[in-house]
Amino acid sequence: MHRTKVKVAADALDANATIANANRDDFDRAGVAVVNLMSAPGAGKTTLLERALEDLDGVRAGVLEGDVQGSMDADRIAALHVPVVQLNTESGFGGECHLDANMVRSAIGDLPLAELDLLVIENVGNLVCPAEFRVGEDARIMVCSVTEGEDKPLKYPLMFRACELVVVNKIDLLPHLDFDLERLLANVDAVNPGTRVMLTSARTGEGVGEWREWLAAVPGRVAAAV
Amino acid sequence: MHRTKVKVAADALDANATIANANRDDFDRAGVAVVNLMSAPGAGKTTLLERALEDLDGVRAGVLEGDVQGSMDADRIAALHVPVVQLNTESGFGGECHLDANMVRSAIGDLPLAELDLLVIENVGNLVCPAEFRVGEDARIMVCSVTEGEDKPLKYPLMFRACELVVVNKIDLLPHLDFDLERLLANVDAVNPGTRVMLTSARTGEGVGEWREWLAAVPGRVAAAV
Repeated sequence: MHRTKVKVAADALDANATIANANRDDFDRAGVAVVNLMSAPGAGKTTLLERALEDLDGVRAGVLEGDVQGSMDADRIAALHVPVVQLNTESGFGGECHLDANMVRSAIGDLPLAELDLLVIENVGNLVCPAEFRVGEDARIMVCSVTEGEDKPLKYPLMFRACELVVVNKIDLLPHLDFDLERLLANVDAVNPGTRVMLTSARTGEGVGEWREWLAAVPGRVAAAV
Repeated sequence: MHRTKVKVAADALDANATIANANRDDFDRAGVAVVNLMSAPGAGKTTLLERALEDLDGVRAGVLEGDVQGSMDADRIAALHVPVVQLNTESGFGGECHLDANMVRSAIGDLPLAELDLLVIENVGNLVCPAEFRVGEDARIMVCSVTEGEDKPLKYPLMFRACELVVVNKIDLLPHLDFDLERLLANVDAVNPGTRVMLTSARTGEGVGEWREWLAAVPGRVAAAV
């Protein structure tokens, strides 16, 4: 029984890689750089994204919002007049706890790729499975909130290892927490040595300029790498 | 392809129900009441559990700690001289984002059931899949932190619907957040009308007495229901 289960999982991952590559080809042909944005529920992905989209240095961005249910985040992004597509894993995808390449593929046709330089895919809030499924992205970012504790990199190492950038958010709350920032940073470095880490507060705006610049520079970095 | 996937998922859920019932029979025979404790990563499950275990009104408790990797939480519980077993989903279970009945079954033999009145199963931090897998428990509790935002019941309704008790934790941070507690409570009530909600701060101790009493009363409630 257990063997069978592992076999099915391996097949699913291979199919995912095939479809992720097809997505990547479509994005490349359209000249769109793609970022996969991940975090635990409530770490502040959408708010950070709102802050960045307010002024992205002329970069034309679109957003794909992944949620189990609802369109609250998509509504927030649409209010900024940014092209956005909501992808619910509930309807037709069995309430999955992550986006996979096939789900993203099903939404590509609804995105105005020709008019975009950058597509941000906001994944379902979860620190486990989203890290296991490539969706055709060029870069992966994770947001972790200081309210989640210093131990998360050691408990969810694959997620921290999968990302080019770790954004440590809600730093305005540091004075009110028993939280050792140095220990978090040491734990991030232990599982993903040398990875870029950024400190932000989407609420006060601290660090948001650096975050915005990093995101705005993604299309240029991708073009230079091709 | 999609049909096949759905079929496999349905089979897996049925197998889970069968094994969950077997677990439940074992727990009942041993006279152990079982609680499944769930939340997003970093909502404060372990700290709340530590606070409760310090003085559980004579109730003999044991803990099963579910994590993808590591034994940090189990070490914290063991320091309180409470029987604890660490269950890692990484080794042998493919890094699953939740506990299932079979994983719990694999750990039952390591628990001193005859010496316990209450077993708390601390699930993997995740608001999606843990709600889909019964493990043989009598009651389900979810912890949500006020730092996660008011929208979580609408985004993850199955989790909020699955629980007898919703513990709203970290309320000491309310003065430092743009957070509307009334809106969260209305959202909880919208997806799970009439469910019991408790406000706590594991850090300051506010509400912890009520939480401790609720947990200590579980074995009596389960015995009365049989």
